[in-house]
Amino acid sequence: MQTLKVVRKTFTLLSEKRTELHDITKQIRDVVLSADVKEGILLVNSLHTTVALFVNEFQAALVEDLKALLDRLVKERNGYRHDDPRYSDCERGNAHAHLRAALLGRSVAVGISGGDLSLGRFQSIILAEMDGPRQRTIDVQIMGV
Amino acid sequence: MQTLKVVRKTFTLLSEKRTELHDITKQIRDVVLSADVKEGILLVNSLHTTVALFVNEFQAALVEDLKALLDRLVKERNGYRHDDPRYSDCERGNAHAHLRAALLGRSVAVGISGGDLSLGRFQSIILAEMDGPRQRTIDVQIMGV
Amino acid sequence: MQTLKVVRKTFTLLSEKRTELHDITKQIRDVVLSADVKEGILLVNSLHTTVALFVNEFQAALVEDLKALLDRLVKERNGYRHDDPRYSDCERGNAHAHLRAALLGRSVAVGISGGDLSLGRFQSIILAEMDGPRQRTIDVQIMGV
Repeated sequence: MQTLKVVRKTFTLLSEKRTELHDITKQIRDVVLSADVKEGILLVNSLHTTVALFVNEFQAALVEDLKALLDRLVKERNGYRHDDPRYSDCERGNAHAHLRAALLGRSVAVGISGGDLSLGRFQSIILAEMDGPRQRTIDVQIMGV
Repeated sequence: MQTLKVVRKTFTLLSEKRTELHDITKQIRDVVLSADVKEGILLVNSLHTTVALFVNEFQAALVEDLKALLDRLVKERNGYRHDDPRYSDCERGNAHAHLRAALLGRSVAVGISGGDLSLGRFQSIILAEMDGPRQRTIDVQIMGV
Repeated sequence: MQTLKVVRKTFTLLSEKRTELHDITKQIRDVVLSADVKEGILLVNSLHTTVALFVNEFQAALVEDLKALLDRLVKERNGYRHDDPRYSDCERGNAHAHLRAALLGRSVAVGISGGDLSLGRFQSIILAEMDGPRQRTIDVQIMGV
């Protein structure tokens, strides 16, 4: 019978711009390697409402394409009610960041196999900061054997 | 060695309008507290195809912004084939609700730490009813120690 | 005390068109049934960056509606930087496929209850190929008792 391990770790990331994408695969992989779990499930969550987490290729041109798509689908300061200073803690208005986060998601779940993340060759775990610069906390939960 | 617990619970919610958002964090938290799992993973799923689950701030102005965004990106009765009465069980047409659910997602995964949900200060688990009023079933699965 | 099982399996799928949706519920269910896990969590991931996985109704008219929505929200060859041959391994341009995958998600998590998937009556697990034809690998991870 196998011994279950449940390992949780949080780490922080300091964003520098209003909107920017970070490849956080290495930080996540380090948590998995140090947890010494061979087979199981990894869950990565943002603890924020204006940050998204997702998996795709982290390539400079594609990152620009994604930012342009978000600018087009969910424009900044587009008459949102939440941008009214009475409703937001953010005086410059951050409703677009909430809405973009809701579309992209705030959670990534990946299998763990052979002690490492089960990701495809071109897959990276990406954090999208949409209301920076801010300090962000990433919550990593690992379960397995 | 730790004793694994696997706890499943479902609960229902009765929506009152065609489109409305519900903060279901309290119902979910109650399931976690009664499961008595200290460290692990929570998985919440909608068992429906015209309901979404996601995590963000539950604030009245932002809720209105999200509904307006969905109205703009995925208009109701926009010539969808699924709105043809031959293809839908819903005579008023609900293709937009399926499409919005596909974009927003139907699943929320959250870490459990210290016996409670590992959510950020402004994060709520939100159910988006998009083809109400209906009775909806939420499926909660908890694994941990 | 219950005996934890962690079961991983991958399977491949050969897509035939540039863009097409597949109902992969049966393949996933077969993995769950053969894993002989009664209560737990199923995680299904695409190992690719131009494929999405999500849950909704798999019905021909709705599939066409979803393809039309994606064509409208994220047009093909829309001046994307990633479509520049210097940045993409795909000479015909596949930035739209990456962006659509980022919006729809590449991961499905479902509860396992009574030895079967805990899915609603109309719910199917759907793979959206957006840059086919290609061979795709699906990664299935099961944890439970």
